[in-house]
Parts: sequence; structure tokens; C-alpha cells
Amino acid sequence: LRHTWRYSPPTILSGGFLLLIAVGTALFATPFASHQGMTFWEALFTATASITVTGMSLVDPASDLTLFGQLLVMVLFHLGGLGLMTFAVLTVMALGGRLGLKGQRVVREAMDQASPGDVMLLVRRVALLALCLEVSGAAVLATVWVPAMGWTEGLWMSFFHAASAFNNAGVSLLPDGLAPWAATPLITLVITGLFITGGLGFTVLTDLWRQRRLSKLSLHSKLTLTGTLILAVGAWLLIMAFEWTNGTTLAAVDSGSRPWLAWFVAVVPRSAGFSVVDMSSLYAPSVLLVMFLIFIGGGSNSTASGIKVSTFMVVVLATRAFLTGRRRPTAFRRTVSLDSVFRAYTVVVLSMLMVMLGCFLLVILEPEMKPMDVLFEGFSAFGTAGLSRGITEDLSKPSQAILMVLMFAGRIGPLALAFSLARPRAVKLRYVEDQVQIG
Amino acid sequence: LRHTWRYSPPTILSGGFLLLIAVGTALFATPFASHQGMTFWEALFTATASITVTGMSLVDPASDLTLFGQLLVMVLFHLGGLGLMTFAVLTVMALGGRLGLKGQRVVREAMDQASPGDVMLLVRRVALLALCLEVSGAAVLATVWVPAMGWTEGLWMSFFHAASAFNNAGVSLLPDGLAPWAATPLITLVITGLFITGGLGFTVLTDLWRQRRLSKLSLHSKLTLTGTLILAVGAWLLIMAFEWTNGTTLAAVDSGSRPWLAWFVAVVPRSAGFSVVDMSSLYAPSVLLVMFLIFIGGGSNSTASGIKVSTFMVVVLATRAFLTGRRRPTAFRRTVSLDSVFRAYTVVVLSMLMVMLGCFLLVILEPEMKPMDVLFEGFSAFGTAGLSRGITEDLSKPSQAILMVLMFAGRIGPLALAFSLARPRAVKLRYVEDQVQIG
Ligand SMILES: [K+]
Ligand SMILES: [K+]
Repeated sequence: LRHTWRYSPPTILSGGFLLLIAVGTALFATPFASHQGMTFWEALFTATASITVTGMSLVDPASDLTLFGQLLVMVLFHLGGLGLMTFAVLTVMALGGRLGLKGQRVVREAMDQASPGDVMLLVRRVALLALCLEVSGAAVLATVWVPAMGWTEGLWMSFFHAASAFNNAGVSLLPDGLAPWAATPLITLVITGLFITGGLGFTVLTDLWRQRRLSKLSLHSKLTLTGTLILAVGAWLLIMAFEWTNGTTLAAVDSGSRPWLAWFVAVVPRSAGFSVVDMSSLYAPSVLLVMFLIFIGGGSNSTASGIKVSTFMVVVLATRAFLTGRRRPTAFRRTVSLDSVFRAYTVVVLSMLMVMLGCFLLVILEPEMKPMDVLFEGFSAFGTAGLSRGITEDLSKPSQAILMVLMFAGRIGPLALAFSLARPRAVKLRYVEDQVQIG
Repeated sequence: LRHTWRYSPPTILSGGFLLLIAVGTALFATPFASHQGMTFWEALFTATASITVTGMSLVDPASDLTLFGQLLVMVLFHLGGLGLMTFAVLTVMALGGRLGLKGQRVVREAMDQASPGDVMLLVRRVALLALCLEVSGAAVLATVWVPAMGWTEGLWMSFFHAASAFNNAGVSLLPDGLAPWAATPLITLVITGLFITGGLGFTVLTDLWRQRRLSKLSLHSKLTLTGTLILAVGAWLLIMAFEWTNGTTLAAVDSGSRPWLAWFVAVVPRSAGFSVVDMSSLYAPSVLLVMFLIFIGGGSNSTASGIKVSTFMVVVLATRAFLTGRRRPTAFRRTVSLDSVFRAYTVVVLSMLMVMLGCFLLVILEPEMKPMDVLFEGFSAFGTAGLSRGITEDLSKPSQAILMVLMFAGRIGPLALAFSLARPRAVKLRYVEDQVQIG
């Protein structure tokens, strides 16, 4: 049952993304997409930021884009968020054709699912679940926004923001963004709930759907869920500790609302990126924490990016294991496979290399800007968080080009890498083995 | 031939360092060590910075310390540089006693040498080599400094700086430091030559001494030498590219001298740390490069610190191997052992964790300072480079305490870690193996 493919999955994946960016750019550049018209560069940046679910922007989606432009953003972040591959499969299904083997392999590897029969079921389930969550999330948002904005505006805002949240796009169409609503418990709960769920990843969601009992979940799901919980609660407590008295962030709202706002700030970097407080007003420790969270991101095969929660957990477990004199990390009565450990370390090292190289070039290109602002922007693009300390528009074009490359690499890089690392060739040792002193 | 030790090598190592810091502090606090007298805190910081060969200071060693104080600094950086362990062995030898098994094991593991008979020979060779290099380096320096400063001053400065360089201490007794001499070819060559040699590591030096032919060197030596060459030349070219027209750094000297000064700036972060240009005047890209170099540091078992060049090389090789679908990195017709790969990744992750945690606390404690200055200080302490953007004295005491912890951890941490990771217990898999999705 071996096949030789003409193009490798990472090639198909990158090619599809590039094609979608080209189409998106062409459409954004038309007069139908924006009131004032966009330059080619603005269109390219908007298309890239939308497909990679980064949500950084050179134009204001609320005031500059027409309804067509806003719908285009929504279509693009669904394609980039719910996944190019899933949507490729759905398209084939919608056209009535049977899924070709090549497409199936792409999806299967993305899902890490062994049984081919599961794939179509999985895809349908995920699409259904996404739709259900977006619609029911929108319905709850509408209970607040319809009374506040009227039926048309209220429903449109509710659905757009539910979709933007579930896809971890972080784009807002409200004049002042979500900031005025971020401490409203109902809005906070629904929006953060949606992007955390979307950021768990398809495998975890399917696993939850299938098993229902937590103890029966796969090791991957358990690690992702535990990691998400630890990171969210840990970041929440730290943000409250750091920012409680910061008059431009948490202390801008009354003390009863601060825990809600802090929760939003703590979970939004991985990697929804809605702008709810001014990132340039955060105290320095919070900024470092946010950059750390952006780098980790959400779950594998999710609408979130970053190195992924499971990768982070495996590295933590592996490091703990080696420190205690064991070679194999264990968790939840399972031993983490050696392959997973190697892949995790490789993804971390390469991602760090990528983001450092990008940040390095940005710092070179922007000698007038504060290095911390520029580093933050680089991390945010790579983690497709889209948070900014307000410098995106002021960057030079080469810098904006680097941001686009980082978004692209951040969105498909770790996944493409996981493909490449999926099946290491078992090569016989050609050379004698030798120790190297470490540390 | 199994023994149960009462204390593990890392415990003995840390204990010895703490004891030396205590003795050093007591001596620095006496009126004999400084002209104006030092506070307990200044004495503690000076002792810690000297033993860990960091060379950061709250007092000016040139003007504040007496000759006794300066000699004390020199003794301490020899102890911390040439190695506590080597010196422990030398002390036993000097006292005429035979080396106990316990001491021998510490040294042997530090050297990663298999044969016990080699150890004493190695120690004697290294001490002899260090002395030869320091004395001959001093002799060359004296040809410039004796004419410039007279016999007494010139000889003392020559020997002190040769020793400070070989031990990667980075302490200077000249009124303006080495800055006025850093573009003088002879001085630049001797000083950088000494600290690069000292930073290669005992194993590499012994290997060079023993083999003479490069092709017969061990894999460890080849990786360390290649890595050192790549990092030095790469950093040199980048520093010249970045700083050539910076009037406060390279362009402060005539264009013929700039390559010499650039060479000094490029190699000094790993981890000699002599202050030859104002670190706060470097352009931002150079600052990031310097921080990267500080983190990598010098060779294993050397007078330099950091994660070590060999660790860096193994991580690079391993990442390349996994990317190309192989599981085992190879270099110089050797396969790098799986143990070395795991140790390298662990040292990198834990060092990064340590330095990030330290920097995080520093940023919290110093809200008024520029985050980049504070991060630089944290990296510099952990890598025992001792470079500073001029804020060491202005830091609060808790921050200075964190710097001391970072110096301590940076000097003995990776080595202690290497001890702990040296012999992973071969445990049977207790649990079923499971994959985790990565990336
Ligand atoms: K986003
Ligand atoms: K130093």
C-alpha cells in the first residue's frame, strides 16, 4: 500500500496557502472591498493576516472595509483557521466527488488518525461542531449586542465575533474593538470560551466528542487539556498580580471587573489576539509573559498557532524526566514516545530560531523603534496572535514583509515540520558512535 | 567497584563554591582589601563575581581595591576559572597526600575521561599549560605596557590581564579598562588569544596537546573547535557590518583599527567580558547578537561559561538530522550518541528557563529601567560574561541578589547538570507508550 506522491504534504499545504493569499489579495484590491480603496501592499498584508488568522492590520477592518471586505476576511480566517486541509476535503465533498487518496493522506496526517474511515467522519464532525459553536456563541452574544445595537448590527456583530473568536482570528469590527466589552462577564465568557475551544484542536475536540469520559481520553488530549488549564490559570493569576493597580490596563475598570478583564488578557495571547488592553501600557513583566504565551500558542491542529501546548508539555515532561535520571517521560500512566520527544525539541528549537531570526532582522530594519516593541511584534506575528504595541502601520515595508513571512511560517511551519518529522527514515548507523561533552 | 557517596558531585561542587564565596566575602570586607572599605554587600558581590569569573562589579577594582584586594580577585578567578575541581586536586597534591577516590571521581567526571590514571596527568598538564600561557601572554603584553607604564606597573598589569583573560574573568585594573588598547593589534591578539584558549576547555586542550594532529582529535574537540571558529568569525563579520559607522563604537577608531576592535567585540562575549566598547552604545542588532553569544559561551570544562559550544553544536546537528529524516546526528564521520543529544537539549531548555526566570524577576524588580538593559544584565550574569549596559550599581539589592544567583547557576549549573545527567537510570517502561501530536 505504498504510494509515491508527486508533491509532499508540506508543499501542497504551502502552495494552497500561497494561492489563497494571491486570490485574497486580488479581491481586497478591488474597489468592492474597501471604501477608500487599498494599495496592493495593504491588500496583500490584509489577505496574509486574515488567512494566517493573525489579524494584524494596516487598515481598520471596522471603518475601512465594506461589508464585502469584511465577509472576505471572515471567509479567509475560516479557511486558515478551521484549516486549509479540512476545507479542501469539504470542498471535494460539496462537489460530490469522492475524496482522492492524496487529499485524504494530507488530512489523515494532519489529524494523526490511523484509520482512514475516521477521516471523513472527523471532518464532518469538526465542521458541524464549529458551526454549532459559532452559532450558539453568536446567539448568546446577541442577547447583549442586539439590545445595544439593534437587530441587523447586533446579529452581524455577534456572528462575526463568534466566528473570529472560534477561529482565533482576533479581528473585531467594533469601532473600539472588544476593549469596552472585555470586562462584561457574559461577553468575556463566550468569546474566551470560543477561542479556547477552537484552540484545543480538532483531535482533542473529536476525542472529547467520542469519549465523553475524561479518563478515557488519549494522552495527547489529556496533555493538551492539562496544559491549557495550567497556562490559562497561571497566566490569569500573574496578570492580576502584575496589573491590578495599572491605571491604563486593569485599574481602568472597577475592581469587581478586573478579574474578568485579567482573564481575557491572560488567555487572549494563545493566539486569539483580540486587543482588549493597550499592549504598550502593560508593565514589562506582563509583556514578557504575553510574549511567552504567544510563543506557546494553542493545541495541535487547532485554529491557534505557536509551538503548541502539547509540544510545550512534552518538553517540560522530558526535561523533568532527564533531570530525575530517567530517559523517558511519563504522564497519565503512559510513556511519551521517543519520537514525540524528538519532534517536540526540534519544533521548539526551530521555532525559536525562526522567531529570533525574524526579530533580529526587524530590529536591524527599525533602528528608530524601541527593541521591545519590535520583538513583541515579531513574536506576535509568528504566534499569529496579532497583538501589537501599535507599531504595525509605522513599520517599513521590508519589516512588514518579514511580519508576513513570520505569520506564514508560524501558521503552517510547525505543522509542515510535523509532517516532515512524522516518519524518520530508519538509517543504520554509518559511523561509530561517540560522546560529546555537554554543559 | 561500586561506591555509595555521601554527597553527590554537584553538592560538593556547590558547597565548595559557597565556602569560597564566604571566605572571599570575609576577606574583601577587611580594611586591607579596599581603600575606602567595602560594605558587606559590596564584598559579597565582589567575591561572587570574582569566583564565578563574571567580573561585574559594584566597586572599581582599579581605583577602590588595594593590591591585596586585587590579588584576592586574581586568586578567586583562578579558583573559579581554572576550576574548583582541578584546584581541589592540586591542593591535595600540594599537601603531599594521595588523591582520594571521591575527589578523583569528581575530577574524572568533570573531564569525562574514562581512565583514572589519566586524571592526575591531565591536571598537571592543564595547570602547567595555564601557567605557561599566562606567563608568555604576560611577557608579550609587557613589551607594550612596560614602555608605556614603567617596569613595576607594566609587569603587574601584564600579568594580571593575562591571567584575567585566560580565566575569562574580564576584570581590568587599567583606569579606563582595556578600551584604549582594544584596537592595538598586539594587545588584541594576545588577550583574545588567551581567553579563547582558556575557553576551549581542558579536554580540548589536553586532546590538542596529546594528538597534535587535528584529524586524530576526538569528536568533542572537533565540534568545539569548529563551533568556536564559526561563532568567532561569524560574529566578527556581523559586528563589522552592524557597527562600522557607529561613531560611539567601531567608528570611534580609524578604519584600519576597526577590524581589530570588531574582533575583540565579537569574541569577548563568550565569556571573557572585558569592556572594550560601551554596550549601551551598540546598535540593537549587535546587542541581540552579543546576548546570543553570551548564552552560548565557551567550551565544556573551560574557564568560560554559557550552555557551551559543544552543546550548541549538538543541538544544531540534531535539529538538522531530524529535519532530514534521520534520527541520529553525524559529524566528522562519527554518530553523536543519543545521550549527548538528550543532555544537550536538556541543558539548553533548563538554561533558557533559568535565564528567563531570572530576567523575568529582574524586569519585575526594576520597573523604571529599560527592559533591554535589564535583560542584557541577566544574560550577562548567567553567561558569566560580566558585560553591562552600565546599570549594575543602580540596581536594587534584590536585583543584585538575582544577578549573584544567576552567576552562581551559570558557572556551576550546566556542569552540575551534566553530572546529574551523566548516567540515566535504565528503567523498564512501566507504562504503555503513546504518541503525542507535536507542532
Ligand atoms: K489572532
Ligand atoms: K567574565
